[in-house]
Amino acid sequence: MKVVISLTLLTASLMASTLVNTAKEAGLKPIPSSQNELNKLIDDSRNPITAKKIELGKKLYFDPRLSKSALISCNTCHNLGEGGDDGVSAAIGHKWTANPHHLNSPTVYNAVFFEAQFWDGRAKDLEEQAQGPIQAHPEMAATKEHVQDTVNSMPAYVDAFKDAYGKNVKVTFEKITDTIGLFERTLVTPSPYDDYLNGDEKAMTTAQKDGLKTFIDKGCASCHNGISLGQGMNAFNVTDTYKHQNVGDFKGDANAMVKVPTLRNITQTAPYYHNGKIWSLKEAIVEMGRVQLGTKISNAEAASIEEFFKALGGRKPTFSLPMLPASTVTTPKPDMN
Amino acid sequence: MKVVISLTLLTASLMASTLVNTAKEAGLKPIPSSQNELNKLIDDSRNPITAKKIELGKKLYFDPRLSKSALISCNTCHNLGEGGDDGVSAAIGHKWTANPHHLNSPTVYNAVFFEAQFWDGRAKDLEEQAQGPIQAHPEMAATKEHVQDTVNSMPAYVDAFKDAYGKNVKVTFEKITDTIGLFERTLVTPSPYDDYLNGDEKAMTTAQKDGLKTFIDKGCASCHNGISLGQGMNAFNVTDTYKHQNVGDFKGDANAMVKVPTLRNITQTAPYYHNGKIWSLKEAIVEMGRVQLGTKISNAEAASIEEFFKALGGRKPTFSLPMLPASTVTTPKPDMN
Repeated sequence: MKVVISLTLLTASLMASTLVNTAKEAGLKPIPSSQNELNKLIDDSRNPITAKKIELGKKLYFDPRLSKSALISCNTCHNLGEGGDDGVSAAIGHKWTANPHHLNSPTVYNAVFFEAQFWDGRAKDLEEQAQGPIQAHPEMAATKEHVQDTVNSMPAYVDAFKDAYGKNVKVTFEKITDTIGLFERTLVTPSPYDDYLNGDEKAMTTAQKDGLKTFIDKGCASCHNGISLGQGMNAFNVTDTYKHQNVGDFKGDANAMVKVPTLRNITQTAPYYHNGKIWSLKEAIVEMGRVQLGTKISNAEAASIEEFFKALGGRKPTFSLPMLPASTVTTPKPDMN
Repeated sequence: MKVVISLTLLTASLMASTLVNTAKEAGLKPIPSSQNELNKLIDDSRNPITAKKIELGKKLYFDPRLSKSALISCNTCHNLGEGGDDGVSAAIGHKWTANPHHLNSPTVYNAVFFEAQFWDGRAKDLEEQAQGPIQAHPEMAATKEHVQDTVNSMPAYVDAFKDAYGKNVKVTFEKITDTIGLFERTLVTPSPYDDYLNGDEKAMTTAQKDGLKTFIDKGCASCHNGISLGQGMNAFNVTDTYKHQNVGDFKGDANAMVKVPTLRNITQTAPYYHNGKIWSLKEAIVEMGRVQLGTKISNAEAASIEEFFKALGGRKPTFSLPMLPASTVTTPKPDMN
């Protein structure tokens, strides 16, 4: 009896490590369990992460006064209390304007692991990305000057910049967006899946492990790989045409390449696809198989993959709601038009 | 020498206690320093405050999915990271619609101390108030059914209601808004002014004490009194007509009475007046003297009163940004129209 149990355990253990190896061979990588290892991945020598910069970046991320109307913050479309996104099909911004290409807001969580930002990958990092929506007319609709003048009008902000960067810091638009980008680098959500790949065999349920195997077997990891399970660019409509391709006019970058979205926290980031036209995760999985892999993913397989996706729901950083400095008489006035 | 010092101290002490007495005689009341005393003021026997209800109410307060578009939460117009308001003249809601009466969003901080809610005092308490903006078309534009269906579509919410109210709870619209109102009851911000009235003579600066004296001498406390320095209803345009009276069509309640706004955290809640047409606090003070008291408040007096107002900046409750449950397939879809 003892021998049987030991053999069973040994077999289970071997199977588990086999799946971990298979996952790693498929290009899947965990968020490192060591904070030091993680720091090496998310830090940037051009602007090293410090606690003071994180605090300041967090305030700026939540400050709607950076927008023309004083009503839209980064957190409006990349809501950290939700999936790091807004849960609507096409992003809605200034004057209730929908994204002109009908593009869906991607999550900011774990975006630090992307090789490029935006659906067409046009920004190389979070710092560069942060400059876009603040200035885009259908989003925050601000000018660089508006952002600079707003932040510089509040002594508490200027003091916080001095405290974070030294007393000679110039609070420019770029310094502001760099600080927002730095905060965003810290928005990493380790999950049971990471715990599993990092050696905790009990972190995922059997059904989730089966789902991971299905995910790899069907070929999903050929694009959804790396730490973020979607970090690079890839062709779209490879084997067939996406059934909502006619909604919006997005066609990818100059080479028709599209940023592969992360699958982390995917159960919290509906609706799916670049134009947010599919609300059901199962439907999204089946459609991906058809459009990208030329393979039929059965309902049972899709359910299994969806089960695996539950293990990608991560532990979000917790922090106090930032208390913003009060506007002053020189703070630019909101403009709704 | 000793005698002289003692006399000086005695005189200062007498003067201080005289000002405290004068303030109390003028109807000004501090937020109690004892949590027990405060609880008696903010609690409601119909729905006693508990930690679980606060946590749940906080989530609901921050949840934009209660709105028709899934983009507007209570916190959008009553931003707890700002002054508990939105910092714009007229509230902006669903489809970027401005309040049709050009009314300014009042702060939610310390609103528990108001005798009535809304500028026309039409809601008797925060629970009743919470039902309004969620359903108002230019605000969150939701139906009762939308709100109920949304909350009931997420098992984590339903479980939290059971945990807070017992397993037989019915998660109705009213239960939801009652829970939001309960959370709002806890949004109290004790300030240096309260510390001073509660006996800490050093809590306010000399200039702030002088400002308090000016505030009382000019008659401001005849309306701005009670704990919230503005808790009841009062006539408006008493001695002259407000210079921006023509902006919007608000004329108060059936008896032309207007809710007196709180002065707590007033340096963080510009713009001022029911239609948010005055951005400068000093200008607002001078205009109030002219319109309500028939008295000329000099620039120096207004500056002194403004100095006092700084002591009304309170210590806000700190809490973690609430993490909201994920939507499910049955969660009503956002509707931008």
